[in-house]
Amino acid sequence: MKINVLFSPATADELYFTGKTTVVIDVLRATTTIVTALQNGAKEIVPVATVEFAVKISGGMFGGQTLLGGERNTKKIEGFALGNSPLEYTEEVVSGKAIVLYTTNGTKAIAKAKFSETLVTCSFANISSVASFLSGLNKDVEIVCAGRSNNFSMEDSVCAGKLISEISKLNEELYLSDSAKASVALNKSFGKNILKMLEESEHGNILLDNGFEEDLKYCSKLNSSSAIPYFTGNVLKLYTDNKNSSQTGKEN
Amino acid sequence: MKINVLFSPATADELYFTGKTTVVIDVLRATTTIVTALQNGAKEIVPVATVEFAVKISGGMFGGQTLLGGERNTKKIEGFALGNSPLEYTEEVVSGKAIVLYTTNGTKAIAKAKFSETLVTCSFANISSVASFLSGLNKDVEIVCAGRSNNFSMEDSVCAGKLISEISKLNEELYLSDSAKASVALNKSFGKNILKMLEESEHGNILLDNGFEEDLKYCSKLNSSSAIPYFTGNVLKLYTDNKNSSQTGKEN
Repeated sequence: MKINVLFSPATADELYFTGKTTVVIDVLRATTTIVTALQNGAKEIVPVATVEFAVKISGGMFGGQTLLGGERNTKKIEGFALGNSPLEYTEEVVSGKAIVLYTTNGTKAIAKAKFSETLVTCSFANISSVASFLSGLNKDVEIVCAGRSNNFSMEDSVCAGKLISEISKLNEELYLSDSAKASVALNKSFGKNILKMLEESEHGNILLDNGFEEDLKYCSKLNSSSAIPYFTGNVLKLYTDNKNSSQTGKEN
Repeated sequence: MKINVLFSPATADELYFTGKTTVVIDVLRATTTIVTALQNGAKEIVPVATVEFAVKISGGMFGGQTLLGGERNTKKIEGFALGNSPLEYTEEVVSGKAIVLYTTNGTKAIAKAKFSETLVTCSFANISSVASFLSGLNKDVEIVCAGRSNNFSMEDSVCAGKLISEISKLNEELYLSDSAKASVALNKSFGKNILKMLEESEHGNILLDNGFEEDLKYCSKLNSSSAIPYFTGNVLKLYTDNKNSSQTGKEN
């Protein structure tokens, strides 16, 4: 089982992902928000790469059961029901709803990886579940760090390293690329105190400046969810393991 | 003084570098070869982004005093006088010559950063000199890791981290981006035994498979040169500090 990490979605094109097993990570905040929304009963998340497309499909396809969510430069987009704070995606708000989600980095990275054979999202909230899922598949894995404006971000890379460390506990025969080895080392250097790492990161600083201190605390929680957001038919849904559905959190 | 590291040239376009102070690193092997060639008396290096352009300009502009050098997939290009092994660039071969150089990653990264106000190249061979030079300038720095086919490479990132650590000894007021902090941590994790790190890297493995064991040993040497390859008028020359030229190695 080979594991590779892309520190930026910019280093690969859409076709690179064809037929691959891919994990997208955007700790601050898209993939933390996605797992929270699905855990809280959202029917599905539609990740989109442009605001225009988000507005277009929310108007027609989904009727009254659709919410528009997302952010540009950390702030909620005008006319959208929700921003990109996972704390907004409570059961009361999202239960039973389809959510069309646009974010600056995360949903773009998911959309880019859409030709993957298997595509799931990960954050600190669900590392353990995603590690079990990938280890069970036992296929080569590409981990895509959404980063920030195509640049490296510490939090996504540390999360990738922690995910690889978890997989290595379940699967002894791992071949790690340079970037995968680097991620594991970064998790050892910075992953012991996740909240501190987030607070000292570039993106964390911007969120703190914009009043999202509680979001950082929430995004730093490790394995608070057993849900696995799984991309199928252009939407993210909760992954259901038919053999043992209790492993994968709240099911629809 | 802010320092940022790009782990791949793919995450920025040419105009990103306009007016910036940029360091390009391609340890295996372009920037090790470049510093070796200039140290050994080459008049200048013309870094080019395509083989076709290398052949074109070598035929006309430089007459009999020009050598064509470079590689594609680690191997010397047919019709070229030299490959990309620094061991080929001896004083006997390169003294007084202009060298048109094409390599898969390094010279492309240099060509991409050509709009920088100041552009130098670095490898383990000349870290200390480049650190002194940058600290003296005291401007914000972009370090570009040439990587391998736009992907992250361990050796360039560890070299970037070691360069930043050297600068931090000379300049106390550094602001490090996420990628710069990660590079420093990677140097701490992998930079103690440079040869071992090269041997275990993806690119190092490919070079070993192709018989370049001696190149890895050569490229692992720390501060074997005081030369600083400096980009000016579309070529790389030895940087000459008029105030104290003895600091910057062999001068023309």
